[in-house]
Amino acid sequence: MTPLKNDRFLRALLRQPVDVTPVWMMRQAGRYLPEYRATRAEAGDFLALCKNPELACEVTLQPLRRYALDAAILFSDILTIPDAMGLGLYFEAGEGPRFHKTVRTEADIAALPVPDSARDLDYVMAAVKTIRGALAGSVPLIGFSGSPWTLATYMVEGGSSRDFHNIKRMVYDTPELAHALLDKIALSVIDYLNAQIRAGAQAVQIFDTWGGVLPGPHYREFSLAYMQKIVAGLIRENEGRRVPVILFTKGGGQWVADIAAAGCDAMGLDWTADIGEVRARVGHQVALQGNMDPSFLFASPAKIRAEVARILESFGHGDGHVFNLGHGIDQKVDPANAGAFIDAVHELSARYHA
Amino acid sequence: MTPLKNDRFLRALLRQPVDVTPVWMMRQAGRYLPEYRATRAEAGDFLALCKNPELACEVTLQPLRRYALDAAILFSDILTIPDAMGLGLYFEAGEGPRFHKTVRTEADIAALPVPDSARDLDYVMAAVKTIRGALAGSVPLIGFSGSPWTLATYMVEGGSSRDFHNIKRMVYDTPELAHALLDKIALSVIDYLNAQIRAGAQAVQIFDTWGGVLPGPHYREFSLAYMQKIVAGLIRENEGRRVPVILFTKGGGQWVADIAAAGCDAMGLDWTADIGEVRARVGHQVALQGNMDPSFLFASPAKIRAEVARILESFGHGDGHVFNLGHGIDQKVDPANAGAFIDAVHELSARYHA
Repeated sequence: MTPLKNDRFLRALLRQPVDVTPVWMMRQAGRYLPEYRATRAEAGDFLALCKNPELACEVTLQPLRRYALDAAILFSDILTIPDAMGLGLYFEAGEGPRFHKTVRTEADIAALPVPDSARDLDYVMAAVKTIRGALAGSVPLIGFSGSPWTLATYMVEGGSSRDFHNIKRMVYDTPELAHALLDKIALSVIDYLNAQIRAGAQAVQIFDTWGGVLPGPHYREFSLAYMQKIVAGLIRENEGRRVPVILFTKGGGQWVADIAAAGCDAMGLDWTADIGEVRARVGHQVALQGNMDPSFLFASPAKIRAEVARILESFGHGDGHVFNLGHGIDQKVDPANAGAFIDAVHELSARYHA
Repeated sequence: MTPLKNDRFLRALLRQPVDVTPVWMMRQAGRYLPEYRATRAEAGDFLALCKNPELACEVTLQPLRRYALDAAILFSDILTIPDAMGLGLYFEAGEGPRFHKTVRTEADIAALPVPDSARDLDYVMAAVKTIRGALAGSVPLIGFSGSPWTLATYMVEGGSSRDFHNIKRMVYDTPELAHALLDKIALSVIDYLNAQIRAGAQAVQIFDTWGGVLPGPHYREFSLAYMQKIVAGLIRENEGRRVPVILFTKGGGQWVADIAAAGCDAMGLDWTADIGEVRARVGHQVALQGNMDPSFLFASPAKIRAEVARILESFGHGDGHVFNLGHGIDQKVDPANAGAFIDAVHELSARYHA
């Protein structure tokens, strides 16, 4: 493999010295970019784009052509695993993801297979290999998966949800069923992320988009415990280098001490967390990733720059910070504002690493 | 005025001794009750029900006829103030609230009046008086308002929002405009809550439903600071008794120390907060209200009872706890489960007050 030209991102995740704070954006390959919209139109739809390794590679690289990003992230969907389990993922225009089948009973759970990712999700592994080749060592490639809890919410609800009544009823009323389901998903995620690592992913992030809807004890038992199990099952070194793991729970700001103790290398923070306070509590254990409000990209470049400065100052001097948004970039953002954000991180952060 | 027969709720808010933990439910007068749906149909629609003091009184009392609740809460909407400012509140079937006019520019803000609540919101004050008379001292009556930040989100967005782009752009890009708007709303809320207190409300709660969507520093500057201003402007004693103030920020679990220091008597917690941890941090300053996940009411009565036991044990022995849900009760809940919840609180809590 080509040696990495820019390894700031991997170094920061391991709290090693860097020249400037590395930065990437969740959903950086997305609809705010006109070139993304063009490629997606060429593919036909979102799922066809995910399943076409050449086009998935193309959209993965698009933001890197515009911006001085310090990492690429595999273009894919968090719901590939339930789709490979046979639930039938589809998207309706203007709606979120949907499944043809839901998972609600003991029999539904027993019938779910644990996919063999190398075979059943070969299109994802092909995309990872294609992207690694195309990156040619410019920046590292991040692989990812949804967390078991987050995947379970979609599988039980049958798609996006506002109130999570069905999955919560399962957790609160029949917790043994929820555990059986989460166990199976966790095994699937371990296999999926390890296959991505074998295919060339140099770091992995677990997206726990919906962990924040649970009470604390239930978050620990039904979300964090399964992420911890995954972390324990992952390949942690590949190509002679550590493969860092990032755990990101949206709405997890009250549980940062628990997350930091789960064995991950880094913790992603949403925009509500005070990164300086979190660093004071757990910064000796993990690196921190985040955490500007994605909606700040609707403000002027000058205001964006001031907010970047505030967050850098909140984290303070020293290593272990990967800058990011606190959630995915919105489709209505002006690409120029994303550029102002990324440039501000690099320009303003050097003095914190002197 | 008739002396109160059951003042557990008011005593607990002031951290005074009680025999059992008092309990009420946010949105306890609501669509999960068939008798509510009947009265609402009689009124015509939701807003007509809010504006009819006799029918508002009727639905306020309905849950008290079914359950051993320790408080009544005025039946009204959080958007009465912007409606009185002339924005034209309306509800579309299946949608959230909407306004005919939005507030986005300096001119829009300058044109907004501060309503005289006794005159412009006389239907609310009439409802408060009617309910107080009908309660006849059985339990205390809670008055309420939305927080300035929460009201501003609806006024700027023109209704409910998922992403709050317009109000966030105002806060991030033109904070001086946001402050001008929030100042005007805060003055209106002070007048509104004081009018409710004069009309007979014996405690007041400020609902900050959307404070949790902000970064910490912005929450403090654009939401909490205005609630603090309101608390400082309220009548705190009436009818020879203290009128306790409860601040409730959904998603505010990371900021409990700040909220507890804002001058309130009690802090409402959503279901994600660990009430025991919060008590350890700030329980010497304020009473705590909460915090079972409203979705727990979809579980069996036995599971609901176990969750009530867990939360009581988490808070622990001693006074200063008002039991509640962590957010409003859902319309799909079986009323029998709400009863199981309320009975469990009373039955299981006595030993914590021995």
